[in-house]
This record gives sequence, C-alpha cells and structure tokens, in this order.
Amino acid sequence: MQIAGEMIIGHQAVMGREGFIKAVDPARNAEIEPGFGLASRAELERACALAAGAFDAYRETGLEERARFLEAIAQNILDLGPALIERAMAESGLPQARLEGERGRTVNQLRLFAKVVRDGHWIGATLDAALPQRVPPRADLRLRKIAVGPVAVFGASNFPLAFSVAGGDTASALAAGCPVVVKAHPAHLGTSELVAKAVQKAAIGCAMPEGVFSMLIGAGVQIGQDLVSHPAIKSVGFTGSRHGGLALMRIAAQRKEPIPVYAEMASINPVFLLPGALADDAAKLAQAYVDSLTLGSGQFCTNPGLLLGIDSPELAQFAAAVAAALPAKVGSTMLTPGIHQSYTAGVERLAGQNGVQLLAQGQPGPGACAAQAAVYQCDADTFLRTAALEDENFGPSSLLVRCRDADDLLRIAEHVEGQLSATLHARAGDRDLAARLLPVLERKAGRILFNGFPTGVEVAHAMVHGGPFPSTSDPRSTSVGASAIDRFLRPVCYQDVPAELLPPALSSANPLGLTRLIDGTLHPA
Amino acid sequence: MQIAGEMIIGHQAVMGREGFIKAVDPARNAEIEPGFGLASRAELERACALAAGAFDAYRETGLEERARFLEAIAQNILDLGPALIERAMAESGLPQARLEGERGRTVNQLRLFAKVVRDGHWIGATLDAALPQRVPPRADLRLRKIAVGPVAVFGASNFPLAFSVAGGDTASALAAGCPVVVKAHPAHLGTSELVAKAVQKAAIGCAMPEGVFSMLIGAGVQIGQDLVSHPAIKSVGFTGSRHGGLALMRIAAQRKEPIPVYAEMASINPVFLLPGALADDAAKLAQAYVDSLTLGSGQFCTNPGLLLGIDSPELAQFAAAVAAALPAKVGSTMLTPGIHQSYTAGVERLAGQNGVQLLAQGQPGPGACAAQAAVYQCDADTFLRTAALEDENFGPSSLLVRCRDADDLLRIAEHVEGQLSATLHARAGDRDLAARLLPVLERKAGRILFNGFPTGVEVAHAMVHGGPFPSTSDPRSTSVGASAIDRFLRPVCYQDVPAELLPPALSSANPLGLTRLIDGTLHPA
Repeated sequence: MQIAGEMIIGHQAVMGREGFIKAVDPARNAEIEPGFGLASRAELERACALAAGAFDAYRETGLEERARFLEAIAQNILDLGPALIERAMAESGLPQARLEGERGRTVNQLRLFAKVVRDGHWIGATLDAALPQRVPPRADLRLRKIAVGPVAVFGASNFPLAFSVAGGDTASALAAGCPVVVKAHPAHLGTSELVAKAVQKAAIGCAMPEGVFSMLIGAGVQIGQDLVSHPAIKSVGFTGSRHGGLALMRIAAQRKEPIPVYAEMASINPVFLLPGALADDAAKLAQAYVDSLTLGSGQFCTNPGLLLGIDSPELAQFAAAVAAALPAKVGSTMLTPGIHQSYTAGVERLAGQNGVQLLAQGQPGPGACAAQAAVYQCDADTFLRTAALEDENFGPSSLLVRCRDADDLLRIAEHVEGQLSATLHARAGDRDLAARLLPVLERKAGRILFNGFPTGVEVAHAMVHGGPFPSTSDPRSTSVGASAIDRFLRPVCYQDVPAELLPPALSSANPLGLTRLIDGTLHPA
Repeated sequence: MQIAGEMIIGHQAVMGREGFIKAVDPARNAEIEPGFGLASRAELERACALAAGAFDAYRETGLEERARFLEAIAQNILDLGPALIERAMAESGLPQARLEGERGRTVNQLRLFAKVVRDGHWIGATLDAALPQRVPPRADLRLRKIAVGPVAVFGASNFPLAFSVAGGDTASALAAGCPVVVKAHPAHLGTSELVAKAVQKAAIGCAMPEGVFSMLIGAGVQIGQDLVSHPAIKSVGFTGSRHGGLALMRIAAQRKEPIPVYAEMASINPVFLLPGALADDAAKLAQAYVDSLTLGSGQFCTNPGLLLGIDSPELAQFAAAVAAALPAKVGSTMLTPGIHQSYTAGVERLAGQNGVQLLAQGQPGPGACAAQAAVYQCDADTFLRTAALEDENFGPSSLLVRCRDADDLLRIAEHVEGQLSATLHARAGDRDLAARLLPVLERKAGRILFNGFPTGVEVAHAMVHGGPFPSTSDPRSTSVGASAIDRFLRPVCYQDVPAELLPPALSSANPLGLTRLIDGTLHPA
C-alpha cells in the first residue's frame, strides 16, 4: 500500500491542507517522504462529530460483531506485510525482529480484547429482583456497564505499533464500545497511516458506523489540546512524558465537563538486589541487568532506572561485573533525534549531581542518534536528598544506590514516587526483608516482580501496567492487559424498565449467556 | 451517651481548642448545646498520620474480621438508641420516622458491605499461569485489587446518618480496606459525635489498628482544603453542592500527587411524562409527583426538579391536578437556615426568568426554616435558551417544561447536563418514543427508571447513584450500592512472586474460597 500522507476521518482518507510534516529516519537524521498534511480545526471537528454520531450505534453492536471487528483489524494489520515493518524500521530506528515481535503483540492484544468482549465479564451484569411485598417495596434493579463515549488516543513514540494507532488504548476503547479519535505520533507518521487504513478497512468491512475510528495528523501541541478540549471526547488515553501527561490532565480538568485522563508517564522502576540474590550469583545478575537496561536502547517505560543494594563484597562484585559487561554494549539508534538529545542531556545532569559517580559506560554506537548506555552510583543519603535523581531519563541509563543496611532500602522504597513496577531479586534467606518491603512496594507500584527485570510487559488478564502518580495519572487502572477495558466503562442502573426495553445483557432470559450477579450471588454463564 | 463536643482521633476523644461551634436547631433557628471544639492543624496532622500508619495493617485484615468490624459499627449505632434519633431530629429538623428509617438504611448499608467484603468479588482475583515453554516464556502473573489508601469523607447535610460519619462513603471505604478521616458536617455535630464514637468503639472492640477511623471538626472551608491537600489522603468522598465539589476537585488536581475525588453534586433528575402515561391517569401521576417533590422538604439529590411533557389536553389536566394538589402540602423545616435561605433565593431566581410562570405553590409552613413548595412552568424554547433553568435548587421546587412534540423532548434530553437519574412515565403505546429517549438518557444519567419517582435510592447490588458531570465528578462510579467499594481500589500485579509471599487471595490453594479468573476463565468459589 502506498503511503499518501493522509489522515483518516470516518470513511474518508483526507489530505490535510494546513501545512506538511515529514517523518524522520533517526539513523540518518534525514526526512522521509512523503509529506503528511496537517489537520485543520474543521477536520478535528468532523472527526469528533462523526465519533459522537457513531457512539450510540457502536456501543450497542453485538458482542460477536464487535469481537470480529477487532479481529479484522488484527488481520488487516498482518495483511500489510513487510511494508509495515519496513516503514516502522525507517521511522523508529528499531530493528526488524523487534518490530515483528511488536506486530505480533499488537495483533494478539486485539485478539485478547475480542475474547474479552465475547466473555462479557466487563459488562458487570447485576440483577436485584423486585420485592413488592417488602415495606417499602423494592423496585426491580439491573445494572450494566456501558461505554463512556468517544476516546482520544495519543500514541507512544516507543511502540509504533503496540501503543499507537491500533495499540492497547485503541483496542481496549473499541472493545468497551467507544469510538476512537487517534492523534498520530509525529515520529511514525507512515506507520500510523498504514495502520489507520487497516482499521478503517475493518470498520467498513464489518459495517461499523462511520466515525468509530478516525486518525488526525498535527504538528505541535495545539491539535492535542483541541482534541482533549472537545466536548464530544469523554476520555483520554496517553503514553508519553510527564510534562505531556500533566498538560493533558490540566486541560481535561479545566473543561466545562471534566473528563478522565489515563496518562502513562514517568517511572524509574526500582530494582532491589537483596543479599541472598547477590550472594547467589552477582555476575549473572549483573549481566541480566545490563541486558535489560540496554534492550531497545532502554526505551521502555519499564526500563530499570534505579538499582538498590546493601553495601557488601557481593554488591561490589555486582558493580564490578556491571562495569565489565556494559562496555560490550554498543549504542543503538534512539527513536527520534529529540529523544536522543534529551537522553544525552539527562545523562549529563545525572553526572553533574553531587555525590554521583560514573560506574560504567557502553560504547557510543553508530549514527547520529545512538544512545551510549551509562550506569552511575551514589549512596542512600545522596539519593534521598537529591530530588533530581528520581527523574526518569528515557533511555539506557540507570543509577545504583549503595545502601548501608536494610533500613536504607526500606527508607528509599518509602521515599520514591509512584512506579509502574518494583522488582526484588531475592532468595529463600531474603524472605524476611522481602516481606518488609512488599507492603511498601504495593503502595508504590502497579506490578511487583521477583527475580526478573521489568521490561517485557505481558498482555494477559492479570497484567497491570499502571501505578500511583506520576507513573500514571490514575492508579485505579492498567493500560496493558484485559482490565484496560474497565477504563472506558461506566455503570448504568435500570429500575423497573419494561422487559422489551431492557438491553439484552440484562434481559431475564440472559440471551447473551453472561455471568451475572443475581441478588448478590454470582451465576456463571 | 453524653455529647461532649469532641472529635475522634484514633483511640482518643479530643476536645478541640481552636474555638467552638454549635449546631443549630433549624425549627427554632437557635443554637443547641454543647459547643464543639475546633481542630487545629496538629490534630488534622495526627488523624492523617494515624490513618497512614494504620493503612498497611488494616488493608490486610481478614475478610471475616473486616466484615465483623462493619457489623459492629452497625450494632453500635443501633445501641445508641433513641438518643441518636432525638439529637438528629433537633439538628436536622427531620421527623422521627424519617430518621429511624435512615438509621435502618445506614445499618443495612454497613451490613451489605460486610457481605460484599466476605464475598470478595471486589478483589478481582485473576491468575495467569506461567508458560515456561513458550517463546518467550510467560511469567506467573496474579492480580488482586488493594485499597488505595486513607480516604477523606465529607458527610452530606441531608442524610445525617446514611451519608455522613458512618454512611455510604465511610462504609465502602472501610470495606475496601481504606482508613477514613471524616470531616464532620457542621449541621449535625452532635449526631456526628455519637456515630463517630460508635465507630471508634467498634474499631477498638474489633482490635483494628488505631487510626482506621478519625473524625475532625472544623468551621469554614479551611479544614476541608487541608484534609484534601494532605499527602496521606489518597481519595475523597463528598456529597454536597456543585460549588463545594468543584473546589475539592481543584485542590485534588493541584496536589503534588493528584488524587481522585468522588463528589456527588448537582442533579435536576428529569422526569419525562410520555403521552400514554398522561392519558392513563394524569391526576394520579400528578399526586405521586407532588408527593415525591415535597418528600423531606425536597432535600434529596434525586428530587424531581424537571418535568417534561408534550402539550396536550392530558398535560393540561396533569398541570391542573398539580395546581390542585400542591396547595395541600404544608412546608416543613429545612435542614439549616442557610439551606432555607438558598432555597428561597433559588425560587425567586426561577420566578424572575423570562418566560417562566408559576403553576402552583404549597403552604408556607411553620417555623423559620419551612420550605414553601413551588412548581413553575415554561415552554421548551425558554428552557433551551435559559441556562439558569438547569441549576439545581435544593428543596421542593420544580419546573414543568411544556414541549411541542416528541422532538422537543429529545432535544431537551440531549441538551441537559449529566444527571443522577432520568425517569420515564410510559405505557405500552409509548414504546417507540421511550426507545428513542433511552440511548440519550443512558449517556446522561446513572439511573433510568420507569413509572416511579427517583427519590428513594435502594441500597442494593445493582444500584447506581452516580452519573456524568456535574451530577458527580466521576461518572465511572456509584456512591450507593455494593459497587461503591470499587471507587477505593486499585489493581496490583504479582509476577513470579514466591508462594510464601503471595497474599492469600492469590495463593494457588485459594484459601479464601474466592471466585477467580484463571487463565481467562471464571472459576466460581
């Protein structure tokens, strides 16, 4: 499929006329053809109006019908073949294998939500029978969850497929019954167009109402602000910087009708190296850490940016092994020149902090935008008194904090801001210390993992990719995994509604075969 | 039990020393003894610190233990006997039968949440087995919901028991595992002290960690602002005015760590009188409406403030019946002199709008704070062009909008702001019109009811007392009914956590006997 530089507004492919932008190949720091036309206010209005117009019909599509729509999107993405991967490689600097893996993840995510839609647990169907004899009599009460309305989705730079146009936010919003208006990420415009056309083709092929999906192209922040401000938009999904997320939160809170924002922002993902784990095999742990740190140029929300251990010969051995292993890592191209610049500045800021020393560096790597990995170290007091050491630096840099004792570890666990993940490396002998850390980490993080590294976020029912502020704007949610659908739902109660007007999910005969809570007891399908 | 003028801070009863306030008997417009000491900043700090300190222990109390705590609160409230009702009558102007009913509702609500806690559906236990053979291997993933942290609760003026110190917000937050810090409503200080001591007695009797419950007394808005700003507080429950709710939302959004606010604010609860229902028995409908409007001086969030019908002889008959029935209603005392004043001003504002005419009035009623009921009327165009007609006027006033046709009804349904409830009076012949209105009303309201009136909110599993802004600050929630617990939970994922460190809810042996989602399939307990 030819890349035309178009956006998608309902059933149309539209060439914007408010100027042009081009994607950039970060490996060459050079623009890639074609130019992409920028949306005017009128196009934004049209996308939002279509979304609002599609909403009532789309949210009442049958479960099977909606599931097939999601599956059709998945198939259409696969059908794009190597052209999609090639364009994504050129725009992101990410290697082929990684993008093929990410495409698999994107497709599996859509298929998981198709299963979630069919299962219907998300509807939360609940029935309380009328009690006409009671004093006072109780009405017939039935509850279901419905979609909140059109959702604005802002794709992430670091997952041009899995967290972008047809990524987790879009898949879960469509699954919930919400039309989606995507603001394309300027770093991967061609990839976005290809995927948006795959979604559009599925929407038309599955006879979904026009406006269930649109994708706008804009430069700068205005279009995003306008989108979040638009009265038709009822919720927002965003993955990106703390600065960007906070800006959207402010806009959403200041609307005439404030709306929720699900922003996944900043996390340094502390990793606790407990004594038993260090004693067991410090060198192997060091290698696994260096691999996780540098994976994909460290461009993951779950990159291990903070390491904590208690001063000991074993920790020294670990540090020495890191210092030995990291120089073997050759820098690879980052997603954009801007991200590379900001990473380099972040490393310089880290290096300039009082009490912080360089532990190890990777090799610079080829090309204009290759990230040189770096690990710094400091003691616990330095960390506790230096707020800047908690700032996420997106890329392969990390800080090892040498603690005096277990109390230091606990103090730091209590001190850090909210996180997407917290990791413990522990052996049987570390049980008591791990048990002391766990309740603190439960308060701080959305995911707690043992003896692994936080990179690699499984798309599953039990996944949580979320956490207390500032890792996200809303700790009550996840943006990865089946529960992500819950973000875009709200409950509605039907009191004494005549049988012929009840939605099928709440009909007494249970025609959808749902698991339902009836008079307080769960009745499986 | 003597009322001492004290607040409750953990295990202590504390007399504030920052000045005094007294409750007011609205029937006499006279202060009631004793004076209540006002909290200093130090007392607020202590309540919040105790709540934070109690959190980890309290959220891990066993389900049975926590359920018994809720039941003990219920029993202790009953044990207060007539003294509670007498004090609440004096402070609120509400009659004995109403307050006894409300006490029953409060106690049932606590008992419902005890059942909800025991059932454990709220934990959302979800297990995905490890797939070590898969490429790449999948880790063992387990998800549960945990409490978000200490919750600040602001009681409502209009439910001194059911939406106050041990009301719906407190009961659902305690059920979720959140310590609660209540800011006592100045309109019912004595009632608040009695109930707070009942909660404290239950907390001590059930050996709950100190700080699981505190209640502060303050005058003015400062204490509430300080409470919502406090870093230990992680969520807010509020029932009150739009102005008050918006202020708390702003404070919560501007914190260093923004937190959710569940504010239940303003709703005019449109009631649609469809032609068949009017033709069936306009006079009976009019009487039921007048009864609902004037019930408890109209001091319900779900009071029917907006009536809509299509101009016809039947609508004229309905209006005539309202005009005949309302003068028989004698005004009763409102909750506070301030509420009475604000109601009277609201009626004057309504009367002063262009195109609005008085349809009927009730009798003034005895005492300084009796509310004179009033029904006004206007046409659809007047309503659509006059934003002020959408303002809630808390009390027994209402507006009948005479529409030309069904399209007017739909236009107004689409025009109104978010509502707690929307009501249809309809017969078989109204089916098509009802079916056109339903999808619009689903977008606008948290509860849709047929052939009744929205006052009387059942505490049940399927209830939704919530709705789009401005009826609440968060349409994804309800403040009444079993689902209210969901407001105070967040998901945490446990990845490869050793069996001996897993919470019991996620242990493979399922020692709590929970219904769990395992590998995507629901396994009932």
